[in-house]
Amino acid sequence: VGKSCCDYANTWNFYYEQPCCSNTNGITHARHHRDHVREFTCGQLYYRTFLLDEDRDSLFVGAMNGVYRLNLKNISLSGCERDLFSLKPSSDDKRSCVSKGKSELFDCQNHIRVIQPMDGGNRLYICGTNAHNPKDYVIYSNLTDLPRSEFVPGIGLGIAKCPYDPLDNSTAIYVERGNPGGLPGLYSGTNAEFTKADSVIFRTDLFNMSNGKKEYSFKRTLKYDSKWLDKPNFVGSFDIGEFVYFFFRETAVEYINCGKAVYSRIARVCKKDTGGKNILSQNWATYLKARLNCSISGEFPFYFNEIQSVYQLPNEPRKFYATFTTSTNGLVGSAVCSFDINEVHAAFQGKFKQQETSNSAWLPVLNSRVPEPRPGVCVNDTASLPDNVLQFIRSNPLMDRAVNHEYNNPVYYKRDLVFTKLVVDKIKVPLLNQEYTVFYVGTNLGRIYKIVQYFRNGEPRSKLLDIFEIAQNEAIQVMEISQTRKSLYVATDHRVKQIDLAMCNRRYDNCFRCVKDPYCGWDKEANTCKPYHIELLQDVGNETSDICDTSVLKKKIVVTYGQSVHLGCFVKIPEVLKNEQVTWYHHSKDKGRYEIKYTPTKYIETTERGLVVLSVNEADGGRYDCHLGGSLLCSYNITVDAHRCTPPNKSNDY
Amino acid sequence: VGKSCCDYANTWNFYYEQPCCSNTNGITHARHHRDHVREFTCGQLYYRTFLLDEDRDSLFVGAMNGVYRLNLKNISLSGCERDLFSLKPSSDDKRSCVSKGKSELFDCQNHIRVIQPMDGGNRLYICGTNAHNPKDYVIYSNLTDLPRSEFVPGIGLGIAKCPYDPLDNSTAIYVERGNPGGLPGLYSGTNAEFTKADSVIFRTDLFNMSNGKKEYSFKRTLKYDSKWLDKPNFVGSFDIGEFVYFFFRETAVEYINCGKAVYSRIARVCKKDTGGKNILSQNWATYLKARLNCSISGEFPFYFNEIQSVYQLPNEPRKFYATFTTSTNGLVGSAVCSFDINEVHAAFQGKFKQQETSNSAWLPVLNSRVPEPRPGVCVNDTASLPDNVLQFIRSNPLMDRAVNHEYNNPVYYKRDLVFTKLVVDKIKVPLLNQEYTVFYVGTNLGRIYKIVQYFRNGEPRSKLLDIFEIAQNEAIQVMEISQTRKSLYVATDHRVKQIDLAMCNRRYDNCFRCVKDPYCGWDKEANTCKPYHIELLQDVGNETSDICDTSVLKKKIVVTYGQSVHLGCFVKIPEVLKNEQVTWYHHSKDKGRYEIKYTPTKYIETTERGLVVLSVNEADGGRYDCHLGGSLLCSYNITVDAHRCTPPNKSNDY
Repeated sequence: VGKSCCDYANTWNFYYEQPCCSNTNGITHARHHRDHVREFTCGQLYYRTFLLDEDRDSLFVGAMNGVYRLNLKNISLSGCERDLFSLKPSSDDKRSCVSKGKSELFDCQNHIRVIQPMDGGNRLYICGTNAHNPKDYVIYSNLTDLPRSEFVPGIGLGIAKCPYDPLDNSTAIYVERGNPGGLPGLYSGTNAEFTKADSVIFRTDLFNMSNGKKEYSFKRTLKYDSKWLDKPNFVGSFDIGEFVYFFFRETAVEYINCGKAVYSRIARVCKKDTGGKNILSQNWATYLKARLNCSISGEFPFYFNEIQSVYQLPNEPRKFYATFTTSTNGLVGSAVCSFDINEVHAAFQGKFKQQETSNSAWLPVLNSRVPEPRPGVCVNDTASLPDNVLQFIRSNPLMDRAVNHEYNNPVYYKRDLVFTKLVVDKIKVPLLNQEYTVFYVGTNLGRIYKIVQYFRNGEPRSKLLDIFEIAQNEAIQVMEISQTRKSLYVATDHRVKQIDLAMCNRRYDNCFRCVKDPYCGWDKEANTCKPYHIELLQDVGNETSDICDTSVLKKKIVVTYGQSVHLGCFVKIPEVLKNEQVTWYHHSKDKGRYEIKYTPTKYIETTERGLVVLSVNEADGGRYDCHLGGSLLCSYNITVDAHRCTPPNKSNDY
Repeated sequence: VGKSCCDYANTWNFYYEQPCCSNTNGITHARHHRDHVREFTCGQLYYRTFLLDEDRDSLFVGAMNGVYRLNLKNISLSGCERDLFSLKPSSDDKRSCVSKGKSELFDCQNHIRVIQPMDGGNRLYICGTNAHNPKDYVIYSNLTDLPRSEFVPGIGLGIAKCPYDPLDNSTAIYVERGNPGGLPGLYSGTNAEFTKADSVIFRTDLFNMSNGKKEYSFKRTLKYDSKWLDKPNFVGSFDIGEFVYFFFRETAVEYINCGKAVYSRIARVCKKDTGGKNILSQNWATYLKARLNCSISGEFPFYFNEIQSVYQLPNEPRKFYATFTTSTNGLVGSAVCSFDINEVHAAFQGKFKQQETSNSAWLPVLNSRVPEPRPGVCVNDTASLPDNVLQFIRSNPLMDRAVNHEYNNPVYYKRDLVFTKLVVDKIKVPLLNQEYTVFYVGTNLGRIYKIVQYFRNGEPRSKLLDIFEIAQNEAIQVMEISQTRKSLYVATDHRVKQIDLAMCNRRYDNCFRCVKDPYCGWDKEANTCKPYHIELLQDVGNETSDICDTSVLKKKIVVTYGQSVHLGCFVKIPEVLKNEQVTWYHHSKDKGRYEIKYTPTKYIETTERGLVVLSVNEADGGRYDCHLGGSLLCSYNITVDAHRCTPPNKSNDY
């Protein structure tokens, strides 16, 4: 190809952005490859749980009736039989489930909802719904059973560890360090009853692993107490320092006097918690929760009240990234917010919130009325806490102030969208002292919004980089990202997909889009988009509008007098550019350069922002430039042939 | 024209909907007239107050420094000098206003904000901001001064009758019947202080008109009491039965514990109210208010919290129609809701709402704690009310339940829009026992949304009929409707416009749109859209999708082999159809009828939903039909001429 493409040559007609990652019937295009998208599926198995294990180059996937171990490098190389650890419910369990009125084909199967690594990932802790009779398991991470001699105490009954109903949102994390006696145990947030009346934040009994003796009994939130939990939907849990944190949304008890609303929460318990002595003996003695605030600031802030997912980067335990939505009734919108752990600490160290009587407003508790030691602070032995501290936490686990998101505004928000899951990547360009945070945000309709955040003069800026479809109209259920494999993993109920983080020349065939993606850069010599290095063109912040001018598609066309011609830059305009203003200019011999105004008899705008010029005459010759936001997108040079006028060769047209 | 238009003739190319009512530079089209839109302007005079007087065939318009009397039949016949009653502020008033830091050209002029009829419209009560020194006037409705002998007592000082600041929202109504002593007086809602600290609902002193003696002193809401009024924006007032009602939005005192919000309110006072004896002696002794609820129903209702305007039909005092918006921060949306006065009564007869102490929640007051006579009920002499009744109303003017809108859902709502004003028309078709309610809703960007509501099987249905532009990007400030002149009157800061209610053939040149408008019907014989009568085609409810099939635009085109052709139904697709799905079908000799799929090399969709067929060959001959939601929009018959191939005559093209 060489330099010719950019010199009014005739290489190809339009830029064509491959429908990235979906199976939908699009136009295929020889220039593009599919090896940047890989798929694994064994049918509609509700793939909803991921465990990334880069050491073993594996992605463990929890699905209906089994756990799959996928090849992290290329998931499509994995097999539905070979790489499966099967976990079907017993026929007794199924029968009993069906007799309770649940559906045989979905509800009464064993949906794996927890996969957690034990001792460095050697073994896996697994929990499944098991036909509305939750059950847990421990296996080797090579998908083999443990021998009888390696029996793990406390395993078998999954109640309070994963849900009865496969549609419930739940979370769990296996914590091996910092618990009482240094014993490992599972922390979970889920429904612990068939009827869903009992939702809990739970820690399992803790056993001495060598002799199998129970050393500490389970801990849980207060049963049926709406001040502790009110119809929660759990979205995540993290083991950080001396705490385990839980993220969820729930009915807002403090809002009840103003109507009905759901608020997002972060809650925490001390890992050392062994419960109270006289009261709260079975319960957490250190449980606190605070509202998570993701809102557009202003005199009347606009709240995205309902957290949908939360993510932490492996090497950044001080930040949380989360997606939020409005209530889905009315005007729907979604947002991404980021939170710093200092803000979390500040909320938990601030005032408590209290409703003194059922007729009172929810108000901050005076410091003088907070007992000592301060409720919720980790102590060596919670059984030694005085009763007034326990009594306080029992009735006031809610903090007064909310945990505010960073930078006063969401990273990104958009109306008419439901964001489900997200993962985050960081790109560092040490040479330029530049850092980019890239958010991959999944929607309920199978799309990924790729958003970049960076800083200019200390101010955060966010831009939507790309929208690509993974699976049309299939809600994105779970996402992961691997640094070693530079891949994004996404699952819907129907399939698991693997997508390269840097798609560059497989995604962008034009400089304009290539230079905006921090993973990529435009090679002027080769006229192609490549993974970024310092010698390539890049302009993530859109600071050099003419950076691509010499690299744009330029094409010569000869048009017969009286005919019409279709000029366009894109076969299909990329989703992310759909609402941008595109302008066409004509460099005319007579009139000079002027902006083209559409009229039904001469200049027609196409839905892909192309231009149709009807009945070309001599005055229509010359250059046509297409501009988007100050940048040249593509350029045509039209020569009008007033003499040639023969019908085209028929054989070519049929 | 006759029948030919519908038989593949060559009358005109595309349907063309005249840019109805705006002055923007659009393509003009000989077929359309402009006599359905009339304009009156004397410059940017902030036309914001209308008084419709059908008896005198006049529309009084309050503007900056004067009142105009417009010819109701044709406002463009009125003159800027001839039909003006000038009301400039004195140079002293201006000087003092400027010295307080207000702008000379806007703030320190006299903006007329109240025009109300007195004794049957013979005289006009007028109030203006008068350079931040409000002043009121009485003049004859023929725009002449009263003689000295007809001096009206109490006139001169406009404070509490209209605002200081021309940007304030205020309301006022002159009430002649039902007041104490049967004496006339002005009821108003406005700011009564330069600083805006004192907002009031007010009634002027009442005078014996024959001897000029003051019989009753003014009444007002409690000063600086946020439970009575908290930063209100008034949008309307109505005299109904023994009450005067006020509509406004204000900071929601009962929400304060949950954050900050604005709620919409309806408040009322008894016209007979003369205040309390020991307490509330200067204040209303019967003031009550309730929340107005305009929301999308659901487990978590979505509230449009901020009322923007309210309208009553002249002959329907039992209904209120109002526009609402969300807070303008975040995801913006607007709605239209209707309210029945029985719901208003029910709220005012229900429980009161109370916050017992500043630490209490807002809760309903127990019936046993409501004194007798019930606070807010009209009595002959409010001075005789016991102190406990006055004390109660002083601290609890707020009702517990909200006034709910009709039919459980808004008449209409839409995101990304700000509805400002509305008026309503009713169309009765007695022969078909059918009634249509038509809403004309103005936006902050100069557009009118025309919405029809009708009933099918007792269920209300609403449809957006049309969107037309009055004045690009000029907020619609006031609207009126005249039944005698069948006209809509609309004002922005720059102009007043008059638009025919039934635009029919001036708006719709196609059957498809004509039959949906309850004012119009399609005449198959004349092939034109006419004001509805029983013999014309009409299908407001979209129940007969092929009603227009025989009336659609059909056109024959001969295309030279190898050329391209542009098929379209509309020059510009009507705004209201913009998001509808349009489908093109080709009736091919070889393949039969098939739906056309767009491809960049053959079939291109234009932004106006037209079709460009590139390089026509013999297989492309035949009929092309354009469908929208099951209805045929237009149809082409293409003949491919494989022989004719001569360049067009040059002289025609230049």
